[in-house]
Amino acid sequence: MGLDQPGLRPDVVLRQALEADMAAVDAVIRTRMASEHAPRIPEVTAHLIGAGGKRLRPLLTLAAARILGYEGRHHIDLAATVEFIHTATLLHDDVVDESAQRRGRPTANLLWDNTSSVLVGDYLFARSFQLMVGTGSLRVLEILSEAAARIAEGEVLQLTAARNLATTEDTYLKVVRGKTATLFAAACESGGVIADATEAQVDGLRTYGDALGVAFQMVDDYLDYGGAGDAIGKDLGDDFRERKLTLPVIRAVAAADDGERAFWRRVIEAGKQEDGDLAHAMALMARHGTLEATRAEALAWSARARAALAPLPEHPLRAALDDLAGYVVARVI
Amino acid sequence: MGLDQPGLRPDVVLRQALEADMAAVDAVIRTRMASEHAPRIPEVTAHLIGAGGKRLRPLLTLAAARILGYEGRHHIDLAATVEFIHTATLLHDDVVDESAQRRGRPTANLLWDNTSSVLVGDYLFARSFQLMVGTGSLRVLEILSEAAARIAEGEVLQLTAARNLATTEDTYLKVVRGKTATLFAAACESGGVIADATEAQVDGLRTYGDALGVAFQMVDDYLDYGGAGDAIGKDLGDDFRERKLTLPVIRAVAAADDGERAFWRRVIEAGKQEDGDLAHAMALMARHGTLEATRAEALAWSARARAALAPLPEHPLRAALDDLAGYVVARVI
Repeated sequence: MGLDQPGLRPDVVLRQALEADMAAVDAVIRTRMASEHAPRIPEVTAHLIGAGGKRLRPLLTLAAARILGYEGRHHIDLAATVEFIHTATLLHDDVVDESAQRRGRPTANLLWDNTSSVLVGDYLFARSFQLMVGTGSLRVLEILSEAAARIAEGEVLQLTAARNLATTEDTYLKVVRGKTATLFAAACESGGVIADATEAQVDGLRTYGDALGVAFQMVDDYLDYGGAGDAIGKDLGDDFRERKLTLPVIRAVAAADDGERAFWRRVIEAGKQEDGDLAHAMALMARHGTLEATRAEALAWSARARAALAPLPEHPLRAALDDLAGYVVARVI
Repeated sequence: MGLDQPGLRPDVVLRQALEADMAAVDAVIRTRMASEHAPRIPEVTAHLIGAGGKRLRPLLTLAAARILGYEGRHHIDLAATVEFIHTATLLHDDVVDESAQRRGRPTANLLWDNTSSVLVGDYLFARSFQLMVGTGSLRVLEILSEAAARIAEGEVLQLTAARNLATTEDTYLKVVRGKTATLFAAACESGGVIADATEAQVDGLRTYGDALGVAFQMVDDYLDYGGAGDAIGKDLGDDFRERKLTLPVIRAVAAADDGERAFWRRVIEAGKQEDGDLAHAMALMARHGTLEATRAEALAWSARARAALAPLPEHPLRAALDDLAGYVVARVI
C-alpha cells in the first residue's frame, strides 16, 4: 500500500493525497457547469456529478502530473476536462441504455427527459473542449479529441456487435477500450504530457491507464457469471439476459461443438431464453475453462499495468497507482 | 450579383466559385467519417450529408479565407469541421424533436434509432475537434469550442423557454443565435483567423455571420405566419401549433390587454387550441403590428450583415457574401 497507510483502498489513498487538487477540480467543475442563460444545465449535471462516483479518472490525471513533479495549474483543468467527458458519456449512455438507474439514483432522463440528457451532454463535451484549449497544449488536445472519437466509435461498435455470435475477441477489446480503457489511458497520458514527461514516461502512463481499464472491465465481465464457481448470486447473469458478447461467452462460442453452438444461437442471437439456460451456459463456460481464462486475462492486464509504471520516478502516488492496478483485480484473486 | 453572373442565387454563385475547395471538403468529410471498426457511422452520416443541404456553413468558411487571399489547406479542414458540427447538431436535434422528417427524408432516428443518432453525433463532434486541432491554431479552437458550447446552451434555453409567455426578446435572440447565428459567425470568423486577417476584418466576419444567421431565422419566424398579409397558406402556423415563442408572438404578448393575454395563455401555455385560434392570433399580431416589426428587424439585421463586410478587401466572393445577406431577406421584401 502506498502513502504509509496500510489497509486503505488505493482509490481512497489517492483521494486523500490529492485532496487539495481535487477541491480545485470541483471548483472548476462548478464554475464551468454554470450557465447564465440555461439554469437547467447545472441542475442536471450537479445531480450526476454529486452522485458520489469514485472520480477515478480525474485522480489519474492529477496523480500522473504530481508524480512527475508538476507544479502548475493545468492539471486541474485537465482533470475537470476528463470528468466532463466522462459525465457527458454517462448522460448519453442513459439515452442509449434507457437505463432506469445510474449510480443508484434515478437517471437524468427520467428525472428530466432524453432531451436534457442529450443537450446537457453536448454542453459538457463543448465545455470540456474549451477547458482543454485553455491549457494551450496541442498535444493534449490531440490525445483527448482522439480519445473522444474512440469512445464514440466503441459505443457504436458495441451496438453493432450486440447479440452477434460472430463477435471476435478483437472487437470485444475495442468495445472494452471505448467503454473504459481509452479515457483511463488519456487521463493518465495527458497528465504526463502537461508535466513535460519523457516519451518513455508518457508511453508508460498511457499503457498503465489502458491496461488498468481493460483489467477492470474483464473483472466485471467475469464476475457477472459469478466467477469460476464462487458465485455470490447477486444480479448474476445480467449480461447473459442482455445477450452481451463478453469474453467468457466469446471463448465458449469459439470452442463450441454443433450442439453447443445451437444453444448459443438460441439464447444469444434469437434471445429465446428459458429457465435453466443461465446454469447451462455457465456449465459450458466451465467445460471450456473460459471463465478461468477470463480471470487469467484480467490478472495479466493488471500485471501489464503495474509493469508500465517502471519509467516513472519513485513517489508515494506511483505506489498508490501500483496498488490500484492490484486492487481492481483483487476481487478475483 | 457577384461574379458577373446576374440572376444566379448567391449560394449557387458561392458554390460554383468555390467548387474545387468544396470538392476537397467533401473528400475530407468522406475520409473522416469512415470508421474502420464501426461501419454504421458512415452509413448514418452519408445519409444526412448526402441529403443535399445547401452546405452554407462550409461555404462561409471557405469564402472568408479566400477573400483574404489564403492559399493554405487549413480552410478545407475548418470547413469540414463546421459541417461536422452542424451535422452532429442535426442528429441530436432529431432525438430532441423526435421529428419525422429532416431535409425531406426520414430522419436517422427512424431509419436507425435514437441510439445511433446520439452516438454518431458524438463521433462527429469528436472528429470535428480532431480536425480543428490539426490546424494548430489555438485561436480557431477557442472560437469553435466556444461556439459549440453556445449552441448546446441555446438548445437547452429553447427547451426551458418553450411554451413560456414570460420569454423575452433577449432570450429569443439567444435561442436564435444557438440555432443558427453562432455557427454562421464561427464559420466566418475562423476562416478569417486562419487567413491571418486583421482584428477589424475578424470582427467584421464574425458580425457578418451572426447578423446573417439572425436575419435568416427572423425571416423564417415571420413567414411561419404568412408574413404581413401575403400568406402562401402552406404549413402556415406550425410554430403556433407547436406553441413556440417567436418574435411576432413575444411582441404581441408584450402589447396584449387582459383579454388578449388570456387568449395567449390558453393557446400557448395551456395548449388548448381550437378552430379559428390561428386566425385570431394573426389578427392580434396585425393589430399590434408585430409581423411588420419582425420583418423590419430582419431587414435591419440583413443591413447590419452587409455593413460588417466593409473591412474586407474588394473580391468577387465578398460581393457574393453581400448578395447572400440580401438574398436571405428577399422573400420578405
